[in-house]
Amino acid sequence: MIVEMAKGASKEQINHVVERAHSFGFEVQLNLGTEKTVVAILGSDTGKASTDAFAVLPGVEHVARIMKPYKLASREFHPQSTIVNVNGVEIGGQRVIIMAGPCAVESEKQLTETAKAVKGCGAAIVRGGAFKPRTSPFSFQGLEKSALKMLDKVRTEFGIPVITEVVDIQNIDAIAKHADILQVGARNMQNFALLKELSKLRHPILLKRGFSATVTEWLTAADYLLAEGNQQVILGERGIRTFEDSIRFSMDISSISVIKRFSHLPIIVDPSHAAGHFAYVPSIAKAAVAAGADGLLIEVHPNPEEAKVDGLQSLNIPNFEKLMAELKPIAKAIGRYI
Amino acid sequence: MIVEMAKGASKEQINHVVERAHSFGFEVQLNLGTEKTVVAILGSDTGKASTDAFAVLPGVEHVARIMKPYKLASREFHPQSTIVNVNGVEIGGQRVIIMAGPCAVESEKQLTETAKAVKGCGAAIVRGGAFKPRTSPFSFQGLEKSALKMLDKVRTEFGIPVITEVVDIQNIDAIAKHADILQVGARNMQNFALLKELSKLRHPILLKRGFSATVTEWLTAADYLLAEGNQQVILGERGIRTFEDSIRFSMDISSISVIKRFSHLPIIVDPSHAAGHFAYVPSIAKAAVAAGADGLLIEVHPNPEEAKVDGLQSLNIPNFEKLMAELKPIAKAIGRYI
Amino acid sequence: MIVEMAKGASKEQINHVVERAHSFGFEVQLNLGTEKTVVAILGSDTGKASTDAFAVLPGVEHVARIMKPYKLASREFHPQSTIVNVNGVEIGGQRVIIMAGPCAVESEKQLTETAKAVKGCGAAIVRGGAFKPRTSPFSFQGLEKSALKMLDKVRTEFGIPVITEVVDIQNIDAIAKHADILQVGARNMQNFALLKELSKLRHPILLKRGFSATVTEWLTAADYLLAEGNQQVILGERGIRTFEDSIRFSMDISSISVIKRFSHLPIIVDPSHAAGHFAYVPSIAKAAVAAGADGLLIEVHPNPEEAKVDGLQSLNIPNFEKLMAELKPIAKAIGRYI
Amino acid sequence: MIVEMAKGASKEQINHVVERAHSFGFEVQLNLGTEKTVVAILGSDTGKASTDAFAVLPGVEHVARIMKPYKLASREFHPQSTIVNVNGVEIGGQRVIIMAGPCAVESEKQLTETAKAVKGCGAAIVRGGAFKPRTSPFSFQGLEKSALKMLDKVRTEFGIPVITEVVDIQNIDAIAKHADILQVGARNMQNFALLKELSKLRHPILLKRGFSATVTEWLTAADYLLAEGNQQVILGERGIRTFEDSIRFSMDISSISVIKRFSHLPIIVDPSHAAGHFAYVPSIAKAAVAAGADGLLIEVHPNPEEAKVDGLQSLNIPNFEKLMAELKPIAKAIGRYI
Repeated sequence: MIVEMAKGASKEQINHVVERAHSFGFEVQLNLGTEKTVVAILGSDTGKASTDAFAVLPGVEHVARIMKPYKLASREFHPQSTIVNVNGVEIGGQRVIIMAGPCAVESEKQLTETAKAVKGCGAAIVRGGAFKPRTSPFSFQGLEKSALKMLDKVRTEFGIPVITEVVDIQNIDAIAKHADILQVGARNMQNFALLKELSKLRHPILLKRGFSATVTEWLTAADYLLAEGNQQVILGERGIRTFEDSIRFSMDISSISVIKRFSHLPIIVDPSHAAGHFAYVPSIAKAAVAAGADGLLIEVHPNPEEAKVDGLQSLNIPNFEKLMAELKPIAKAIGRYI
Repeated sequence: MIVEMAKGASKEQINHVVERAHSFGFEVQLNLGTEKTVVAILGSDTGKASTDAFAVLPGVEHVARIMKPYKLASREFHPQSTIVNVNGVEIGGQRVIIMAGPCAVESEKQLTETAKAVKGCGAAIVRGGAFKPRTSPFSFQGLEKSALKMLDKVRTEFGIPVITEVVDIQNIDAIAKHADILQVGARNMQNFALLKELSKLRHPILLKRGFSATVTEWLTAADYLLAEGNQQVILGERGIRTFEDSIRFSMDISSISVIKRFSHLPIIVDPSHAAGHFAYVPSIAKAAVAAGADGLLIEVHPNPEEAKVDGLQSLNIPNFEKLMAELKPIAKAIGRYI
Repeated sequence: MIVEMAKGASKEQINHVVERAHSFGFEVQLNLGTEKTVVAILGSDTGKASTDAFAVLPGVEHVARIMKPYKLASREFHPQSTIVNVNGVEIGGQRVIIMAGPCAVESEKQLTETAKAVKGCGAAIVRGGAFKPRTSPFSFQGLEKSALKMLDKVRTEFGIPVITEVVDIQNIDAIAKHADILQVGARNMQNFALLKELSKLRHPILLKRGFSATVTEWLTAADYLLAEGNQQVILGERGIRTFEDSIRFSMDISSISVIKRFSHLPIIVDPSHAAGHFAYVPSIAKAAVAAGADGLLIEVHPNPEEAKVDGLQSLNIPNFEKLMAELKPIAKAIGRYI
Repeated sequence: MIVEMAKGASKEQINHVVERAHSFGFEVQLNLGTEKTVVAILGSDTGKASTDAFAVLPGVEHVARIMKPYKLASREFHPQSTIVNVNGVEIGGQRVIIMAGPCAVESEKQLTETAKAVKGCGAAIVRGGAFKPRTSPFSFQGLEKSALKMLDKVRTEFGIPVITEVVDIQNIDAIAKHADILQVGARNMQNFALLKELSKLRHPILLKRGFSATVTEWLTAADYLLAEGNQQVILGERGIRTFEDSIRFSMDISSISVIKRFSHLPIIVDPSHAAGHFAYVPSIAKAAVAAGADGLLIEVHPNPEEAKVDGLQSLNIPNFEKLMAELKPIAKAIGRYI
């Protein structure tokens, strides 16, 4: 941590900073500039300390971090890339993993029809929402537990892993029993009570980025999942909130390379939630694969017009088929496959 | 809802839109422009329907809402301003309600000392965090249930209501027993599982705005709280995430008048979390009162240097005293009092 | 335009809206809902009228556009995609056009060395800044007119078109004489005085997106360039300002497909200014090509360490060579070439 | 400047950083942490050097500034607050200066009527646009030079200074002759060619904040104006672009106290452009005065319905009168007057 003293800070104020650093067990080095004094606070655990603990002291103008606030998710402490194994499907390896299926499970027929189709096109994992966090209390809230059973049936019948979202602590056990990957949605990325419970599992967790979380906050939230020893964490980029209003969320395509630089965790991209409209999904999906994403999470519905949730952003089956055919040569062009 | 057809949309496509509107029980009126057809979909319940249900249809270019997606929080359906009564303290009336206290309850001594001081300066409610949602798993997480008991003791001893945050469903009952207002934090504004449970209570709830939620989303989340009949909802503005980096969050001062125009619910402002630094708290607090906020939520600590959480944004007691003295004439200037 | 009246608006207020619409020569259709009246204002020129002209009238709650505020840049009025021809190099056709070179021209040697190298790798156009808009008055401001002569020499010697930025009206003629494409930088996207002058030229213009301009504002600015008959307009996406702080600007990858849907103009992407760091340039560049961009604008410097401007975001020549080799198979995978 | 080396950076890489710092004439101090080395680069002129000059070197992970990139606008180098004198009207003193008038000058009658009314209510300066930067080329562009003459007549007749916007270099002389304050609009905040010319004048300049400029960028742009010796610079906050869509721009009320902390320049607030709607202007105006702004810039029109530009955000004269009556006790409450 770098503590910048205000111009004219007194010796006592500087000493106060030094003493506080010592009280945390950190080392200190003073940099006496012509205008200002800068106190460098050193030690591998400074990332865990709050900058506020120093910024609050008299005579301090600004405090900047050197060590990142996350540790377990950081590549500095874990240089080798993590590969998450979902019943034999590897996320973070050479194969680009396509997860596809309906936003919400609406019926056994709808789920089965979609699962069969997406598997046939090369999808490696089936998605389907059982519990739906909806912005309006008047909207469809999901089939809940009966949807879990349908997902379970699909994974057995088609031999394909399934992913579904967990929205509260109460349902963790039920979901863990019926699904292969538990997804934490964007709105829950900083639901720390939920993250702490999930950390106790050994199931793979997909942690979606909050739509206004920085990459640093996202990786710090991942630390919650990793804290109790669960190493099966996948990151999910799904667009961020910006001023641009032609699209629901702006896909932060750069986060793929930023994550690859600073973290060892695999990252997948959800073009459907970013786009909010099926017309934009293919372009974003192709960009994500070319940029180096380890997979995609795509909403597919046999009849988007009749979808109970997010039909507008869902691809119908022919459009999904077409997209998969377009994605494969791009994956090949960058030395991967689908 | 206004459905704009693409240029050259066919009669069949227009009819398809009309039929869908009829299937929801809505009325329809066609507007045949020279370039485009516009279908107006009318009815008081169109706010509950998703725009996607129409946007997904072939030949549709864009769908715009007329009715807002929230209803119970809307002034259209409830023209009179709501006053929330907290054991005799009215929020939304002529008095500007100051809620003050430590970010986190750290000890009985710290809480009592602060409560005594802030009450002495004119604060109407004492705040204090028992359960703390922290961005890093390595940070202090609050004294939890023992803090609730300290809050309970303070409210009895000083005869002043207390407010504290609820972070998960499990602890709702315990908090409802010991506190007068339950606060939903910004990160939980769209934790719908939590909101649904709180809706069953009859306790006043402070719903803080998510730091990247629009005003419309905030009021739609308030509808969750109001849906089961709890009318005791207070809105809490605490700044939004923007590109500006000199301050933690940008205080959206305009939201006060926007809320007053579109909703009947009272609104208070938290200058401490927006500022992130005590130096900016007084200016924002004064602005909020002048702009018409019904109250303030201010962090005060007897010794900010030693605070376990957010010391940097906490006022010490002399600074809080000074601020209260400055706020009173402003309240008077706009015809209110503190 | 759709004018939503407030609940309880009077007949007189509605008539007032209708009369105003008629005074502009627009047609009107009334939609009498159960809760509210909606006035549809129809006509192909409504895009040119300000929504304010109606929003300001008593009893009006909200006004929404149907026709976009831009017209000349719109695909509705010009369905066929525009191909801009730069001395035989076609932008918007099947070839993905790579423009590469130094941020600022620093010397004849630096420019020539870079031009030779990038042409050798397959770049179709050479870039180089002569006039530099710098955020600080203490920074290097460009070699100005002497740089223009170096660019001119390069285009003659290597038979390759050159692009450079125009920052004020005074230098338009000099730049038009020595360069093939005139670039309007992000900070000048809404410098309407400059756009009006450029509209009188017949040179290709690259209009970079302002870093906080919406796509709609960007296309409306393009209308300024097209208004006097110059049809040679290329759009340049270079990232937008968001809250994310790991990168200089967030590349808005979705804008490529949004632009392709709503406009006939070609679009190129500048990964260098978005990234702000060379490490992120290749990933963004690959994404842009896969997403359907018609070209890229990449900063290359023979020795980035010694660059006077933006060295951090510049690729050195070996890294540019490597990137070009990676981009070619991606272009091929989507049916294009470089 | 603080240069953070990557974990495992070599001695040669560290030496390279040190040598570069020495080459700029800076001092260096090394901080050898257990995990990383941090190089502190010291000297009062480090603010003028680009962080890129170090970030580009091999083995460097991150570079943070200590000295701000602006200098002349900084309170560190000019501790005393600046008072700008506009023909006897002091901006930055105890009086809160209200500048009011039409967005665009439309006729002599309109301007005179407005000027008379606003002066009568206590406005100290009259505003009126002669040259209008409009987002669409089809919109009214201002009366230009004939408007300047009307402004000149008003200032003579009413003995009140006038402010108008300058949009290009060509018209600086004409405007300087007829107006007392030259306003640089938000879209031109980083039009450096324009700023450099204005720096040569001795007229007061109002520099509006770009709607997506940080406070740091704003003050750095002010350095352009101050660089040639013009000390008469006023800052103008007018809202920033955010995701919130209920209002045109989000008023960054916090910037008032941030500016007061880091700069000696006076700051005024424009609630009209932020709000975009007259209904929100009074609340924001009151907040700005309470927060410590040195003045306000308010759009007033005798008949907003008929305004050619921005009628929706203009107050009519009775509403302006009412607002002035409300502002005066607030100014008094904070020890100032209007």
